[in-house]
Amino acid sequence: MDFIIRAAKPEDCKDVFRMTMELAVYDKMPDQVKISHKELEKDGFSANPLFQCFVAEVPEECRSKEGYTKVGYALYFYTYSSWKGQSVYLDDLYVMPEFRGKGIGNALLSKVATVVKEQQCVHLRLTVLDWNTPSQDFYFSKGARDLTTSVGWHLLTFDGEALDKLAKEAPKN
Amino acid sequence: MDFIIRAAKPEDCKDVFRMTMELAVYDKMPDQVKISHKELEKDGFSANPLFQCFVAEVPEECRSKEGYTKVGYALYFYTYSSWKGQSVYLDDLYVMPEFRGKGIGNALLSKVATVVKEQQCVHLRLTVLDWNTPSQDFYFSKGARDLTTSVGWHLLTFDGEALDKLAKEAPKN
Repeated sequence: MDFIIRAAKPEDCKDVFRMTMELAVYDKMPDQVKISHKELEKDGFSANPLFQCFVAEVPEECRSKEGYTKVGYALYFYTYSSWKGQSVYLDDLYVMPEFRGKGIGNALLSKVATVVKEQQCVHLRLTVLDWNTPSQDFYFSKGARDLTTSVGWHLLTFDGEALDKLAKEAPKN
Repeated sequence: MDFIIRAAKPEDCKDVFRMTMELAVYDKMPDQVKISHKELEKDGFSANPLFQCFVAEVPEECRSKEGYTKVGYALYFYTYSSWKGQSVYLDDLYVMPEFRGKGIGNALLSKVATVVKEQQCVHLRLTVLDWNTPSQDFYFSKGARDLTTSVGWHLLTFDGEALDKLAKEAPKN
């Protein structure tokens, strides 16, 4: 199938948001989506963008059942490690179900990897859910290592009341 | 014990790097440190800093056995979630062993939490090693949730040859 991978533009944000919702449903967490395409536009396309994004686009004649030509995306941002310097984190990699198995996910992931190399970053990181074996199989087939099972890294979060309480305890100086 | 928490300056990078090494030794991964204080200076104090940092400083009369007055640090950066918008990731939180149990780690963590709230971010995330129960106990006592054990998020990485190979597969368009 013909497709292109290109940097996202502000006008792609409605499609990216639509697919973000599809991904959240796939991840069984649709209630976790708290922002809209307007925030994506503002956050990704200001003077200091908070993320970068590639979209996968197919020609009109290959559009989806519902008429979409933007059928996948990869959303990433720069991170930092005091041990290794700048790096890249892949927040989302998504391809609509009817377009899977055609190399689009692979092309999106590889495009992000070229950014990692061009920016002389040492690694590309991401998180995946333990029950999501199709995604795990895909990433492992491309050479990913699981730092949770192999090294023991666990992801922790402070949010809600715990975060509020923590902030209130801060020294004033 | 008297101490202050303040934003790091370029001239603190030698001390931050020293403590980064101490932390890597504690984490049993000293070989993972690939950058020096010069990179920290460049990366953290340019026009578009790649990270932010707080240092904990004690008065001269309380200095460490080796004569250090900068005895802890918290290094963090901004991240993004397509579901929740901007957020903060705490890369390192460290207090020198002889200064632990005096509220310095708590003050550093709380200072970062104030940034999270001021910037209207929804969460503060970090990773911790599964064998590092002292750090886990500290974070859990402050209300952190383990997203690996509770939700199933695993951290994956592409680096070295796998990353090189991935980048070479990218479509040229």
